[in-house]
Amino acid sequence: MKNDTVLNIEVEQIKASKIDQVDFDNLDFGKVFTDYMFVCDYSEGEWKKPEIVPYQPITIDPSAKVFHYGQAVFEGMKAYKDDNDDVWLFRPDENFRRINLSSQRLAIPEFPEEFFFEGLKTLLQLEKNWIQKGFGNSLYLRPFVIATEPGVSASPSSDYKFMIICSPAKAYYSGEVRVKIAEKFSRAADGGVGFAKAAGNYAAQFYPTSLANAQGYQQIIWTDASSHEYLEEAGTMNVFFRIGDKLLTSPNNDRILDGVTRKSVIALAEDAGIDVEVRRVSVKEVIEAAENDNLKEIFGSGTAAVINPISGFAFQDKKFELPKLEDSYAGYFKKTLMDIQYNNSEDKFGWRYKI
Amino acid sequence: MKNDTVLNIEVEQIKASKIDQVDFDNLDFGKVFTDYMFVCDYSEGEWKKPEIVPYQPITIDPSAKVFHYGQAVFEGMKAYKDDNDDVWLFRPDENFRRINLSSQRLAIPEFPEEFFFEGLKTLLQLEKNWIQKGFGNSLYLRPFVIATEPGVSASPSSDYKFMIICSPAKAYYSGEVRVKIAEKFSRAADGGVGFAKAAGNYAAQFYPTSLANAQGYQQIIWTDASSHEYLEEAGTMNVFFRIGDKLLTSPNNDRILDGVTRKSVIALAEDAGIDVEVRRVSVKEVIEAAENDNLKEIFGSGTAAVINPISGFAFQDKKFELPKLEDSYAGYFKKTLMDIQYNNSEDKFGWRYKI
Ligand SMILES: Cc1ncc(COP(=O)(O)O)c(C=O)c1O
Ligand SMILES: Cc1ncc(COP(=O)(O)O)c(C=O)c1O
Repeated sequence: MKNDTVLNIEVEQIKASKIDQVDFDNLDFGKVFTDYMFVCDYSEGEWKKPEIVPYQPITIDPSAKVFHYGQAVFEGMKAYKDDNDDVWLFRPDENFRRINLSSQRLAIPEFPEEFFFEGLKTLLQLEKNWIQKGFGNSLYLRPFVIATEPGVSASPSSDYKFMIICSPAKAYYSGEVRVKIAEKFSRAADGGVGFAKAAGNYAAQFYPTSLANAQGYQQIIWTDASSHEYLEEAGTMNVFFRIGDKLLTSPNNDRILDGVTRKSVIALAEDAGIDVEVRRVSVKEVIEAAENDNLKEIFGSGTAAVINPISGFAFQDKKFELPKLEDSYAGYFKKTLMDIQYNNSEDKFGWRYKI
Repeated sequence: MKNDTVLNIEVEQIKASKIDQVDFDNLDFGKVFTDYMFVCDYSEGEWKKPEIVPYQPITIDPSAKVFHYGQAVFEGMKAYKDDNDDVWLFRPDENFRRINLSSQRLAIPEFPEEFFFEGLKTLLQLEKNWIQKGFGNSLYLRPFVIATEPGVSASPSSDYKFMIICSPAKAYYSGEVRVKIAEKFSRAADGGVGFAKAAGNYAAQFYPTSLANAQGYQQIIWTDASSHEYLEEAGTMNVFFRIGDKLLTSPNNDRILDGVTRKSVIALAEDAGIDVEVRRVSVKEVIEAAENDNLKEIFGSGTAAVINPISGFAFQDKKFELPKLEDSYAGYFKKTLMDIQYNNSEDKFGWRYKI
């Protein structure tokens, strides 16, 4: 990760900030965007000069390949402000690595490291006022790449647009979350693109999720597509299971997104002496543990919610409620992670990145 | 299929046609678009008044859900002109049915039947000059739907845009096509979206296909993701295998696109007394047949190429060349289908649709 390049990204200044129109106490996730956006185009085999311009609609041909063949990948990150008004990112090198891994799988050219980090830094300096102080507040950052070449032949695009847009976010509280374990639908194939943050992976989940919603479940925990016997991840979160005092989570494979929060939780668990096993977790063992009162917690991990405790789950016609623990692992990881993210504690893993 | 509605779609006239700038003898597939496009927006729970406007770029928010979550489906159809200058579609009711099936799986609202057919008819009347006479020439039609709601929360869009764009196409000749049978990568999961014409299904194939291209294979024949033992379909074609005089093709399932050309070939085969079996086709039996000189043909079926004969294939480190037959099934189906499409023969199945 480079911290010292100076690209001097050109900035087209806004006329007036929109910030005064924003009600920071009532923010729907991902609905409001800041004053600027970072844009970099790819054509003739190279990424051109990046720039920062006022946030605005883009003009694009209706035959652009992103619309027809779904050549699009993205990332999700957050910027946090500490009590001294310093701004921090959390492990942005992981997001940089991952967007290029996603791109490679989708036949999109990789994005240069300097552009990514200089873009983030310049943008965040401009948008500093949009980052609210206070535990839970943040600026959600959405880097993404779309295929812009006009033409409806099914082959990789010659042209792309890389952008970063920013949306202020407040502490994420989703209410009680109950999940359904997938029995029929699936999220990703072996040998497919499930490990990539590819746009198409998400739309594919909307319909099965809407069926689960109608039954009173907020999310689905996906299982492997071949047997539906092993638990994989949720729509936008990796999942952890606490059986007794042991913490279990599925290993990464080509179906599962290699979550930054997930790998941080695993590191924190090991550091705290919690017994953590990264191995296939079967639906059967989780049900058995639930039936024996041995299943203590299920929680999701992801950038948006940090740690999201699950209060109950269903599999086929069985329904289970989880206990409400005083000293949950979920609570411990959430607090420990956020303390690092907001510069409230020592950063012994070197995860904070100062803007 | 309704043939008699009168919607009176509003048309914003072009200033001047671009048709004189087009070299109809040298058309790359899907690169040139006609003068007009059909547009219909969805918001507040309904499809608004459709209109036809000059072909032009669209303006869309960078946070539009199509860019981030891949909520996008499409269709591919062709219009043909006969010797009397009459214009025909081929089984457009199948495309209409299929786009709504795809939409449903992607949590996109279904498009109204009258809008679809009136849109096609009005558009094709305006673009009549763009359809060249002559066997093999056509106007390729691309209906598609994209999610336009701004916002980066991972949930179905509230707003959509349905469009039809048109691109003149000439007889498709791809040269000799050799294919690789997938051993590691896959196209679709059980319980996934493979049966839908979802944008994301295509980008997912580009990288594995580029690896096959580098080894001298133009396309991949996908196998089931769980075992890679059964042959499914190619990137934009269904596939048929002729072993002896028997014709084999995989049944439809939730991984395979239910091709209009495929179902027409099956009907024509039955009609011609060809022994056709719709059942799982194993890699093993195809290899064995090839080794015993019993594999006579492999061909793909799809709207773009109609019928595309395959000259050779590879599986693992085995390579096979297929014989060049005088009286191939591929040749028979191609001629018979095109005679129906171009109004050169009786239409005993009622597949032609007059504009
Ligand atoms: C499918 C999926 N799994 C897991 C995650 C969690 O990953 P991270 O912790 O890097 O945000 C995300 C969200 O970002 C996701 O989209
Ligand atoms: C994945 C896939 N399979 C098969 C086909 C062939 O379908 P049809 O015959 O309806 O064009 C297509 C193309 O349209 C396709 O995209």
